[in-house]
Amino acid sequence: MKILISNDDGYLAPGLSALADALAPIADITVVAPDSNRSGSSNSLTLDRPLSVFQASNGFYFINGTPSDCVHIALTGIMTEAPDLIVSGINQGQNMGDDTLYSGTVAAATEGYLFGLPAIAFSQVEKGWGELASAARVARDIVERRLEESFSDHFLLNVNIPNLSYAQLKPPVPTRLGKRHQSEAVIKAYDPQGREIYWIGPCGGQKDAGEGTDFHATALGHVSITPLQIDLTHNAQLAGLKKALA
Amino acid sequence: MKILISNDDGYLAPGLSALADALAPIADITVVAPDSNRSGSSNSLTLDRPLSVFQASNGFYFINGTPSDCVHIALTGIMTEAPDLIVSGINQGQNMGDDTLYSGTVAAATEGYLFGLPAIAFSQVEKGWGELASAARVARDIVERRLEESFSDHFLLNVNIPNLSYAQLKPPVPTRLGKRHQSEAVIKAYDPQGREIYWIGPCGGQKDAGEGTDFHATALGHVSITPLQIDLTHNAQLAGLKKALA
Amino acid sequence: MKILISNDDGYLAPGLSALADALAPIADITVVAPDSNRSGSSNSLTLDRPLSVFQASNGFYFINGTPSDCVHIALTGIMTEAPDLIVSGINQGQNMGDDTLYSGTVAAATEGYLFGLPAIAFSQVEKGWGELASAARVARDIVERRLEESFSDHFLLNVNIPNLSYAQLKPPVPTRLGKRHQSEAVIKAYDPQGREIYWIGPCGGQKDAGEGTDFHATALGHVSITPLQIDLTHNAQLAGLKKALA
Amino acid sequence: MKILISNDDGYLAPGLSALADALAPIADITVVAPDSNRSGSSNSLTLDRPLSVFQASNGFYFINGTPSDCVHIALTGIMTEAPDLIVSGINQGQNMGDDTLYSGTVAAATEGYLFGLPAIAFSQVEKGWGELASAARVARDIVERRLEESFSDHFLLNVNIPNLSYAQLKPPVPTRLGKRHQSEAVIKAYDPQGREIYWIGPCGGQKDAGEGTDFHATALGHVSITPLQIDLTHNAQLAGLKKALA
Repeated sequence: MKILISNDDGYLAPGLSALADALAPIADITVVAPDSNRSGSSNSLTLDRPLSVFQASNGFYFINGTPSDCVHIALTGIMTEAPDLIVSGINQGQNMGDDTLYSGTVAAATEGYLFGLPAIAFSQVEKGWGELASAARVARDIVERRLEESFSDHFLLNVNIPNLSYAQLKPPVPTRLGKRHQSEAVIKAYDPQGREIYWIGPCGGQKDAGEGTDFHATALGHVSITPLQIDLTHNAQLAGLKKALA
Repeated sequence: MKILISNDDGYLAPGLSALADALAPIADITVVAPDSNRSGSSNSLTLDRPLSVFQASNGFYFINGTPSDCVHIALTGIMTEAPDLIVSGINQGQNMGDDTLYSGTVAAATEGYLFGLPAIAFSQVEKGWGELASAARVARDIVERRLEESFSDHFLLNVNIPNLSYAQLKPPVPTRLGKRHQSEAVIKAYDPQGREIYWIGPCGGQKDAGEGTDFHATALGHVSITPLQIDLTHNAQLAGLKKALA
Repeated sequence: MKILISNDDGYLAPGLSALADALAPIADITVVAPDSNRSGSSNSLTLDRPLSVFQASNGFYFINGTPSDCVHIALTGIMTEAPDLIVSGINQGQNMGDDTLYSGTVAAATEGYLFGLPAIAFSQVEKGWGELASAARVARDIVERRLEESFSDHFLLNVNIPNLSYAQLKPPVPTRLGKRHQSEAVIKAYDPQGREIYWIGPCGGQKDAGEGTDFHATALGHVSITPLQIDLTHNAQLAGLKKALA
Repeated sequence: MKILISNDDGYLAPGLSALADALAPIADITVVAPDSNRSGSSNSLTLDRPLSVFQASNGFYFINGTPSDCVHIALTGIMTEAPDLIVSGINQGQNMGDDTLYSGTVAAATEGYLFGLPAIAFSQVEKGWGELASAARVARDIVERRLEESFSDHFLLNVNIPNLSYAQLKPPVPTRLGKRHQSEAVIKAYDPQGREIYWIGPCGGQKDAGEGTDFHATALGHVSITPLQIDLTHNAQLAGLKKALA
């Protein structure tokens, strides 16, 4: 099995090494990741300048671009054969609910999915890399289950793993994305010259964290697996719009 | 009516001025846009540095950040009262099918939608600003229809306008997003020092451009309006995943 | 006379327009400036990516690069004939003493000087654009004196102008660069996530501001003109080094 | 002896490790370097955003800023006691003649010199890290000679080392900076969308490479050591200017 690995925390992140180490024994891996931390980069693609590909002493490729750039270039410029699977992560911090829209980790997987390939994004629920070995083992378990064989079409899975020891973790459950309340306000501050500056504020609290959501499952200690799709059409509103435009 | 206007082409783009000029007679407008071209920035948020807000001589605010940053800061740091509507654009070039995932124009509108407000993204199908006045008039028409009154919930509309004169344009039709084939390969080149560089390649050709899609409608000269949603959960695959994990 | 104009505050800065407006009646001007504020950029050149040239509606060219990039590209890629003079500014804030090392305004002029052309950098002593019209008139006066005819070789002049009305300003005097005490310490602060951040601190106080220096002249209300050179060899220490290495 | 080490090729560059490894046995070293390659950054300081300090697993600090930022923050925010010496490099490629103006390697040393401390910049004449171990041994030799004791004032030395084995290298000689002809023209190219792009061209050929220059010494296989100063006042032209302004 050939696996392409990327992330959004950059090629030096512990989560990337842990994922690569966990998968190397069971697959032929290629790692292509951003040169630096690109958290919050969403599906951003670099269109106004060319990108460069470098290779670190451990064999990892790194690119001065976004997670989407990395997977795009890996698939069409570095790998001579398409991988069987694309994995992204392990991200430092959760990508649940509406956060998935902003996530570079999910975006890396999404770029692979857009190329018609199965893809899985892995994130730890809490920041700080606590119990990373446990998360890496979970990632390997999920890859080994060959879930792609259960789907008629390719898939895009979003996996969030509580920072618990492997023994304490509860089994993976299928979930839907929860929903958050709107983000908190920007934080105004002043630079040393007295000029006003603005920091993007934290995301909002949980609004829909009911049973069946990723929020709910991970709070109980389960690994949550949410299958994602990328068609943003709002089919329910399409009917209403037809009436309104008639 | 209070309207917040943003875009991803930057605060100096002709499409932004055209949109502001078209809406100023019918609404109290506030313009907050990126300081430079941020095409392809998707929902990217700037989390690793603070942002600055400037004001141009024409009253437009501009920010050294992404489209999502602009709307986020406008809503929680600049405007004292929430707007009734957020509009984004008019973008230079289409945002149809899967492209919407990468679009900063759609992302600006999406950020407003996430704050619980109705939002509309406007794009011209072709680049080059041809027939921009016509597109601006269409934007005003659509805003004046007060479509928000037809929906029980707030909405996120993605409007693509063929570059035709106002007389030649066909009426707006409700559409779903089409689909593209996978992107073309990266383009390898060399810098003057002989180092290999990579340019992200063009997007793929149309795969699903059948009746009902934005591709189809605009090809016939219609203005296409696609209602968007942002829940990426793949409900159809959720059932299959339940079986696979059982 | 053909004059190339650049700056480091960006192509939209009031100081650039004021300088261009003052010189347009007496010369054939070409303006090529950075797309955004590049204060503190020193002689930085962009070597790892290509640059783009844009043109604003007022005819000014702007480039997504540093002041040195702008002059470099103007001289070898935009202007078909070498200019007779390169001017930079009018900068918002002084470039005196050791500050000249960091200054992008001086760097733009230096780049022209390195191409064998006479060059003048203009700065206002105080920030805030106070008495800008007066500074622009001084700049024109100095250009009209055709000082290049007094020098056997080309020159690089560093002009600092007190923010005074034209009537209050005292005549230009030739000066040497003063010296500052070392910079103040970085300013530690915290971002909203509690992570430590560092702001570069303000420059140090005046150490050599004695008679003959730019600090001294401008404090008395004079326009200071310092001829600069770019050979950093420390000739006095060269002898000592010879002994030490013998 | 306490030594602060920085560079402009970034904290992962082989030249930095080689320098640190060579000096660690003879001094108490602190390494603070940019997070990525900042070649050509000159004395640029980051004034419009705060900087972050990270620490790699090998103990090296790295900063998302320029070489000057790194030394500035190291001296006033990281080190509790001033170092006895600041060294920068080993740079990949020469910093001789007028190039020193653009060099981030020399700038890192210059920042230390501006804080009143002795500083040495080391560069290899050719790119590619050939004979790096030899260059590192030379750097250690020079540090061990305690040249600071031969100077009444602190110093700023610019050392260029031919890529030769230690046995083949000729002894260090004191030199002045040579001079180059003006840079070559920008290189115009086109991006895949057909838009014109510009690459900064290579530096010019040697104009003054006569006896006594760094160009001359290194061409003969000597290590060149040029003492630098930072007062840009052109004393010879000051007299002429006095006449012209009289």
